[in-house]
Amino acid sequence: MPDVIPEDSVGLVTEQTHRFTEPLQLRSGRVLPEYTLMYETYGTLNADCSNAVLICHALSGDHHAAGYHQMSDKKPGWWDNAIGPGKPIDTNRFFVVSLNNLGGCSGSSGPTSDNPETGKQYGPDFPIVAVRDWVNSQARLADVLGIDTWAAVVGGSLGGMQVLRWSIQFPQRLKHAVVIASAPKLSAQNIAFNEVARQAIAKDPDFHNGHYAEHGTIPKAGLMQARMLGHLTYLSDDAMRQKFGRELREGKLNYSFAPEFQVESYLHYQGEKFSTRFDANTYMLMTKALDYFDPAADYDSDLVKCLGQTECEFLVLSFTTDWRFAPERSEEIVQALVKAGKPVSYACIESDSGHDAFLLPIARYHQMLRAYMNRVATDSGNGGGK
Amino acid sequence: MPDVIPEDSVGLVTEQTHRFTEPLQLRSGRVLPEYTLMYETYGTLNADCSNAVLICHALSGDHHAAGYHQMSDKKPGWWDNAIGPGKPIDTNRFFVVSLNNLGGCSGSSGPTSDNPETGKQYGPDFPIVAVRDWVNSQARLADVLGIDTWAAVVGGSLGGMQVLRWSIQFPQRLKHAVVIASAPKLSAQNIAFNEVARQAIAKDPDFHNGHYAEHGTIPKAGLMQARMLGHLTYLSDDAMRQKFGRELREGKLNYSFAPEFQVESYLHYQGEKFSTRFDANTYMLMTKALDYFDPAADYDSDLVKCLGQTECEFLVLSFTTDWRFAPERSEEIVQALVKAGKPVSYACIESDSGHDAFLLPIARYHQMLRAYMNRVATDSGNGGGK
Repeated sequence: MPDVIPEDSVGLVTEQTHRFTEPLQLRSGRVLPEYTLMYETYGTLNADCSNAVLICHALSGDHHAAGYHQMSDKKPGWWDNAIGPGKPIDTNRFFVVSLNNLGGCSGSSGPTSDNPETGKQYGPDFPIVAVRDWVNSQARLADVLGIDTWAAVVGGSLGGMQVLRWSIQFPQRLKHAVVIASAPKLSAQNIAFNEVARQAIAKDPDFHNGHYAEHGTIPKAGLMQARMLGHLTYLSDDAMRQKFGRELREGKLNYSFAPEFQVESYLHYQGEKFSTRFDANTYMLMTKALDYFDPAADYDSDLVKCLGQTECEFLVLSFTTDWRFAPERSEEIVQALVKAGKPVSYACIESDSGHDAFLLPIARYHQMLRAYMNRVATDSGNGGGK
Repeated sequence: MPDVIPEDSVGLVTEQTHRFTEPLQLRSGRVLPEYTLMYETYGTLNADCSNAVLICHALSGDHHAAGYHQMSDKKPGWWDNAIGPGKPIDTNRFFVVSLNNLGGCSGSSGPTSDNPETGKQYGPDFPIVAVRDWVNSQARLADVLGIDTWAAVVGGSLGGMQVLRWSIQFPQRLKHAVVIASAPKLSAQNIAFNEVARQAIAKDPDFHNGHYAEHGTIPKAGLMQARMLGHLTYLSDDAMRQKFGRELREGKLNYSFAPEFQVESYLHYQGEKFSTRFDANTYMLMTKALDYFDPAADYDSDLVKCLGQTECEFLVLSFTTDWRFAPERSEEIVQALVKAGKPVSYACIESDSGHDAFLLPIARYHQMLRAYMNRVATDSGNGGGK
């Protein structure tokens, strides 16, 4: 709750929407006849439209990446620590675009939107979108904003997958790709975690096969469990040890099934909070997009061949204790880029925070990001724009 | 399904029970007025009762560790690969005792038993037992069987915790302790996984706060999710990659929420199977026993001081890709024993199989176990008994 907006904040920002009436052909074979994207922009687009940076969000993210919607907001956007005047993604230099992805539940068309063909809420009938569908829709948003080429496309986790897809799908429309805490595809274990989370939602009797809105229910328990499990995979074992150890809520064991350890209360709190703000069908759909992501599949499962299509420069970042997308997964991307003869910088950042690290203002991480974005600025003719 | 019982099998075995009428004081403060333990024995107790080996089971194990109950059994007991004539735990030399723990659902007193005080099933009112309670009840079983001192107490995972507790609680009643794929206490992450599993069960509307029997229901969905999650933590990322990769059930993506990847089907199958054989209240209770286990807590949280109480020799084994109880957790035990000046042998066994490895007939693992059990046999005067 900022009494005064901090000086290095983008300040008060306004959500914008654009309605796209040209049908979008999806990977699944289905077609979205029309759709809306909700987005925010920070900074100013320069005269030759060369300083635009696209931010791609992760599983439960949205378009509100930086700044405040109103003075009474308790918290700024989800990546406010990295985006702002003088910050690593410096809004004095860059025109930053952040959108809510298709299928989301924060303003863009998704399961909670009305289906124009029926006039009723999509619910579970909203098509399962793939990462390439997001990238196609993001390219159309770029067209609307007059951006032919992004100075950089940036994202962490599932966001990083969108960045990779951009570099393959529209090689000439981005100059730099920043892929953080990501992977070239999910492992069987990653998929398994997603499926357990989906099962928690699907088996909640309030889910009604996704038609909960019609039943006036919300699959709160299922969403809560899915989020608890998600959180578990975002935090490292070390981080949990440091944060909670085996501390007891009431200082003693109660021999009951109520939460007794601090870590249990924390997960309950996180799950509870999430279950009231996020849409279950969106959660199902986003995890499927993760499972399906495998860009090399179109290139005989050869990641070198796949990334051979790219024409941008890459920064790849990973974090030492991330076990959801471990450094080895980022290194697969780096190795493939090197073999394909593409320009890539890589760093594995020391951090105790697991996968969550990509959202945190870790000094070394932000130094790397800042240094790389300085190069991006120079490349886009905005080197002196500070 | 053995047409002929294999030569190295203990053969057909018979379950036995003993009813204990002396009340058992539990860690929680509650008292079990009377209780039954179900157990099996393999091999023959020698004249001076010096060749007895106790097997302690893990989370979902039971007393049926080796052999067959009838010729039509599809599978032998859960640790048949290690227990039998000529096997690492050689029944030509040892008298092996394996029991179902208190609170279990395979014949010993637990939530599915009748409460003698009410004549009705215990259900969720069965007391939450701690590892020390199990060890106390196992000591009484030893008394009944005429075993003053175990040649060895052996267990993996939660079973290994019972072994540790034995060595602290009854230092003079065992000569050797074999602690496999275990830990001196759960980490916050371990506890968190257990809590997510418990929540899956507790939030299943068929659970009825544990009173499902009275409602004629079974919390199948919850148990299934708990087991799917459990399985995920038993397998290593590598094992899953080798076993499933990203193979699709039908060779192509369906863009639906039904299981599409092989790993999803496998987890569904495992969860489904488990949900029809295991009792939900027992699952809740067993995971609590895991969470609570922390023997050093009684010794100013000093594991060296705690293990300083022990008088037996130790074999500690871990597995390279086990991330539920990683090698580092076993090494905490080893380091504490070394600091306390206690005799300990340790090996970290190369394996791709994650935590599950402790149940598998991995050559190097069984060699280590066999060699150590040879020493146990020599110590107990049964060195030449082959």
